[in-house]
Amino acid sequence: MSIQTIDDLPTPSLILDRAILRRNLKRMSERLANAGVTLRPHLKTAKSVQIGRMAVEGHDGRITVSTLAEARYFADGGFKDILYGVGIVPAKLPAVTALRRQGVNLRVVTDNLAVANAIAAAASSGDMFSVLIEIDSGAGRAGLPFPALPGLLEIAQTLHAAPGVELAGVMTHAGHSYHQSTPDGIAAVAEQERRAIVGAAEKLRAAGIPCSIVSAGSTPTAVHARDFTGITEMRPGVYVFNDLDQEFIGSCGSGDLALSVLASVIGHYPHRNQLLIDAGALALSKDISAQEFQPKVGFGTLAGVLASGMAVVECSQEHGFVGADSPLPYAKLPVGARVRVLPNHACITAAAYDRYYVVDSDLDGGRSVVDVYDRINGW
Amino acid sequence: MSIQTIDDLPTPSLILDRAILRRNLKRMSERLANAGVTLRPHLKTAKSVQIGRMAVEGHDGRITVSTLAEARYFADGGFKDILYGVGIVPAKLPAVTALRRQGVNLRVVTDNLAVANAIAAAASSGDMFSVLIEIDSGAGRAGLPFPALPGLLEIAQTLHAAPGVELAGVMTHAGHSYHQSTPDGIAAVAEQERRAIVGAAEKLRAAGIPCSIVSAGSTPTAVHARDFTGITEMRPGVYVFNDLDQEFIGSCGSGDLALSVLASVIGHYPHRNQLLIDAGALALSKDISAQEFQPKVGFGTLAGVLASGMAVVECSQEHGFVGADSPLPYAKLPVGARVRVLPNHACITAAAYDRYYVVDSDLDGGRSVVDVYDRINGW
Repeated sequence: MSIQTIDDLPTPSLILDRAILRRNLKRMSERLANAGVTLRPHLKTAKSVQIGRMAVEGHDGRITVSTLAEARYFADGGFKDILYGVGIVPAKLPAVTALRRQGVNLRVVTDNLAVANAIAAAASSGDMFSVLIEIDSGAGRAGLPFPALPGLLEIAQTLHAAPGVELAGVMTHAGHSYHQSTPDGIAAVAEQERRAIVGAAEKLRAAGIPCSIVSAGSTPTAVHARDFTGITEMRPGVYVFNDLDQEFIGSCGSGDLALSVLASVIGHYPHRNQLLIDAGALALSKDISAQEFQPKVGFGTLAGVLASGMAVVECSQEHGFVGADSPLPYAKLPVGARVRVLPNHACITAAAYDRYYVVDSDLDGGRSVVDVYDRINGW
Repeated sequence: MSIQTIDDLPTPSLILDRAILRRNLKRMSERLANAGVTLRPHLKTAKSVQIGRMAVEGHDGRITVSTLAEARYFADGGFKDILYGVGIVPAKLPAVTALRRQGVNLRVVTDNLAVANAIAAAASSGDMFSVLIEIDSGAGRAGLPFPALPGLLEIAQTLHAAPGVELAGVMTHAGHSYHQSTPDGIAAVAEQERRAIVGAAEKLRAAGIPCSIVSAGSTPTAVHARDFTGITEMRPGVYVFNDLDQEFIGSCGSGDLALSVLASVIGHYPHRNQLLIDAGALALSKDISAQEFQPKVGFGTLAGVLASGMAVVECSQEHGFVGADSPLPYAKLPVGARVRVLPNHACITAAAYDRYYVVDSDLDGGRSVVDVYDRINGW
């Protein structure tokens, strides 16, 4: 059976609204272009060559990835400047070299002197490495914490002095922006992110070490930053789709969510005012990040007027429990009816699927399946 | 590079200890055989033909699945009696028929009269259906709630009367056993499960409707039930691997966890007594079920003497944050060192991987990769 509309799709399936995707991509691309900052989208969210190509339009084609599997996949897709944004380990350097020999400038990151030494030892005039040093601008994840920047100069000098190593710059990710929910709050994190990464770059330059790339970015800080001075590139990721978490913290509006999970109603339980759908923990993920600001969002809310107020309140592996404060409209949602669930965290939900079924709400309200985009999962 | 030991594996990777797997399988198989109950393992956990074949040894080969993708995969693997344990919807009946035409007795479940009517309408003497009616024995998920069993006889009569439909029996899943943590508590849930499903079967038989299959089971109730009278088959799933959640509720011992995630240390953060590994939300899942009884388990604990007391306390997409109450042994865990993370919930963690790297702790402590088993993901 050829697929023509979403009614022909199996459930659960991952649905991508191309009209919303395009608006999200255009908004971020223009915002950063107007700020004089290059967009290096983090494609850990989309994991799709088709979406990656759309995301870099108007910029120079550089991208960010989170796994070697993504690096290989996007290299095969023609991308030439790829930042692998998760701290490298020596055992992964041969895979990096293999891609670099294909003509891809796959750049790596570290914040560790022993790794810097291992990179220096592995490099040669034939097999070069391009390295960014990771800075912690306040998120408390990876990176040398600013302002102390312990060991920064030693790591930088090790890399800069090594034949076959390019110290390309510094990078940070203000992941703590996800825990702010006002433009002012996010703007303050963005300024903290900017000061940290520019401060790290200036510390290198003051020591006579070049630092051409000054890389920052999360979706919230890219949307709300008021000053990009000194930053050369931004790496937002989830903005391509947005999700309930981004909506609640104010990175986007409620009409900007491009991704949803198509599910079927599989049972009615009026004695507890619930129904079940065939999208559970695997189809939605158990990410509940959006509950930080909206506890009633559960594991995702149901899209559409009919579903107003309905959310997935619990889930097991293949069952989603849908509830609401008011009585559920069972007659309008018989077993077999299809619903769309908006995800808490698009990056995590999408990872369960190997493809996007693409619709376009500007064409026909999003009924026809106009394309299928692939995804790269795993490592 | 050919893979010979776990040191050759990429990280993150999913590691399966065959020695522990075999003990887990043998224990459950013998327990149910001794009880006179057939084992119909729920292969939603393993999703692997190789493991499925081992799991049904000593029984008659019947299995349970949670998706149509699993049904197709196990049918291709030679399994002939497959229960699709998630409520069927009319749109999925053609896929069921396609498999049945291949000679597979793919059985479906429902608790809904409209669906029963749709099955009756879709059936014919050429294309039969085998249906079990789902009963809610107290978990509050799918099924007609016991003891009221609203609509049971009407659904059963609809199916029983329909040409081309076999009403094969009744089934239930006492998922609430996961929230008990003592043998007595779980045994009480098991008895509740037994009474409900046997009660439903007796209600059918009293109305003159045959009910040959009386199917129950979760891992905890299969382990701790004290009476199986009237039950014909049990459907435990996670017992094949076990996990921290099963350990904490007492379904298994600490030496019975067959599955772990191999990860690399990617950074040291002594200023906050943490290190990072390259297994985060996607590699471990965001399932925190085991925190119900052991809050410090985080997103998984690190296996091995060296890692005693260490857990993944936070995670983002590709970063796991490892912490402990005592100072971390950074010198023994340099960047690049490998650790093994025991999952909260094996079924959900495993779903991120397309294969198991199989080791055998009885052979050489689990260093050599002795096999690779495949998995079926998606829908």
